[in-house]
Amino acid sequence: MKTISILGATGSVGTQALTVINNNPEYFKLGSISIGSNIERLEEILKTFQPRLVSVGNDADRLALQSKYSHIEFTSGEVGLLEVATDDSDLLLTAIMGSVGLEPTIAAIEAGKDIALANKETLVAAGDIVMAKAKEKNVSIIPVDSEHSAIFQCLRGEKKSEMKRIILTASGGSFRDLSREALSNVTLEDALNHPNWSMGRKITIDSATMMNKGLEVIEAKWLFDAEVDQISTILHRESTIHSMVQFVDNSIMAQMGTPDMKTVIQFAFSHPDRLPTNDSLDLDALSQLNFRPMDLERFKMLSLAYDAIRAGGTMPAVMNASNEYAVARFLNGEISFLEIEEIVESRMSEHKAVQDPDLDTILYYDRLYKSDMR
Amino acid sequence: MKTISILGATGSVGTQALTVINNNPEYFKLGSISIGSNIERLEEILKTFQPRLVSVGNDADRLALQSKYSHIEFTSGEVGLLEVATDDSDLLLTAIMGSVGLEPTIAAIEAGKDIALANKETLVAAGDIVMAKAKEKNVSIIPVDSEHSAIFQCLRGEKKSEMKRIILTASGGSFRDLSREALSNVTLEDALNHPNWSMGRKITIDSATMMNKGLEVIEAKWLFDAEVDQISTILHRESTIHSMVQFVDNSIMAQMGTPDMKTVIQFAFSHPDRLPTNDSLDLDALSQLNFRPMDLERFKMLSLAYDAIRAGGTMPAVMNASNEYAVARFLNGEISFLEIEEIVESRMSEHKAVQDPDLDTILYYDRLYKSDMR
Repeated sequence: MKTISILGATGSVGTQALTVINNNPEYFKLGSISIGSNIERLEEILKTFQPRLVSVGNDADRLALQSKYSHIEFTSGEVGLLEVATDDSDLLLTAIMGSVGLEPTIAAIEAGKDIALANKETLVAAGDIVMAKAKEKNVSIIPVDSEHSAIFQCLRGEKKSEMKRIILTASGGSFRDLSREALSNVTLEDALNHPNWSMGRKITIDSATMMNKGLEVIEAKWLFDAEVDQISTILHRESTIHSMVQFVDNSIMAQMGTPDMKTVIQFAFSHPDRLPTNDSLDLDALSQLNFRPMDLERFKMLSLAYDAIRAGGTMPAVMNASNEYAVARFLNGEISFLEIEEIVESRMSEHKAVQDPDLDTILYYDRLYKSDMR
Repeated sequence: MKTISILGATGSVGTQALTVINNNPEYFKLGSISIGSNIERLEEILKTFQPRLVSVGNDADRLALQSKYSHIEFTSGEVGLLEVATDDSDLLLTAIMGSVGLEPTIAAIEAGKDIALANKETLVAAGDIVMAKAKEKNVSIIPVDSEHSAIFQCLRGEKKSEMKRIILTASGGSFRDLSREALSNVTLEDALNHPNWSMGRKITIDSATMMNKGLEVIEAKWLFDAEVDQISTILHRESTIHSMVQFVDNSIMAQMGTPDMKTVIQFAFSHPDRLPTNDSLDLDALSQLNFRPMDLERFKMLSLAYDAIRAGGTMPAVMNASNEYAVARFLNGEISFLEIEEIVESRMSEHKAVQDPDLDTILYYDRLYKSDMR
């Protein structure tokens, strides 16, 4: 029986994680959770689960909830996140969005907890610090997204030194069949309509801009200790092959599955074991898998991500924060789709990367570039 | 440095194995070899390699060669095969064709040698005996064909108990796009024209009849300790995915590569390590992979193979021997393509499977059903 705590329990990944726990009561037990402001959803969760500790976004919600649910302990804010992260559990799922996940994740690693990592910013902004800490504490970082879970699975039983190349597959997102010219006129609604995956709003936009694949390239570098030149991407519209690894003998291992995050989450929870799932890839329905070389001119955000990791230091954090800022404005209807990349590119060109930054430096630039910078 | 002996050094696999050894002089060294009657090819081999012991098919060749090459030891016949199989080496590649490979393979296992297994008949006819012996002697059986090597790689780092299903891919062979009706008129030359792989004549015909996949289903059962219902097949014309394994969580691992046996042979030699190869799957050229459910009515030989393994005992050996007999006659121009399966089906229907046969019983039926039975 593994006790699992969750940062971000009401989000898309958090919700599916609770389903996985609920489906496997003989294997998994919920520990503590954090949420933001979705109190309605939290109250639904409390009908099914009895978390030991619940952290909410603000203190007013905490007080209201504490008087209503006296048998559960409530906390709030950034301190609350740290409390949930370091609370007694075997595994922490970091499904919280944004760089706010960074400090609690590091605290959990410090406390010796294995991490099921769904928070991209952790590795994008501070991969060097996080992976060094995980190594020091002998903690497993198990990826919770389909691509890195696939790579993780492809590397099981293999020697790291025999890995030649990581090949991340990309569905291409909502606008994969549009030219750059056609992108001028796309709407927010169009952008939120992902062809394969049902995910949160931010990541769906990141898929449409291909920034999501850029973040994944950076994550892959840190997770699998790869050189940036060892990481390539390929367009694969069906998302059936979740990613691949080529070895020195040129043998390629690929992991395939349905586009269902629950399978990915469950693998992270059950690792190193595999547990049965209901959701099966229907092989009789497998008729055609298509591949196309990635076009870095068309998908400029991916090109920016390669630039960021080559610049190193604070640049990936700046790129990520600028992207968060721009995507938030796009989601608010304030800017057009193509302005997302204009903002990211212009902010990156203004920034001179600070090498070997400590966590405070990273967080400083993260906050700066997520802001209006006025 | 691994010393590798080869049964069947002048055949298609044997020749490619010698290239692999030649390409990796710092890792592999040739031990002893057996050949049949291709003395010309043997003399070419002796220009490059210095095998300790060479076994040839008949005694006349042995005497002629011994007087010409006094620094090499020659032997011949079935005894010669046993001598090569048990000679001092780390690994034996059994690339000899037909059931004549059975006894030397078992002798090599008895002598504690790891086996790189390219001889299908070994497991098809006597999988139960061979695998039990390998387990007893703690010997590795490493498959040398692209499908089983793929499955072997998919299972690295995985638990056998978490394997749900093996999915063998099948190119469909020379006649994959023909209806059963159209098969009445095909020629030997057509049948020998495999779309993807360059292989020996017998296996190319077995690919065209789909008996090759049937033999592979039976091999997979023994190699991976699978129930017959756990082994399925799928048509995949590009042969890029060499085979797949689905696990209990429905995750599918697939191994991909070029259709080059040298990569497969090298992996069997280098296992558990991987060594660099020149031959790389060009991912930019990867545009489309096609899949079609297997049609057991169209590919009746595969259906017969499932029947054979379900009948058990001596039936797979009888099926295999009948197929060898029929294919030999087809290669001699004596029968038509469709008569191959008629002969196999009729011989199987005449045979009542003997359960738990010993090796002598298997070899008795093997010889009987390979003959004219008059």
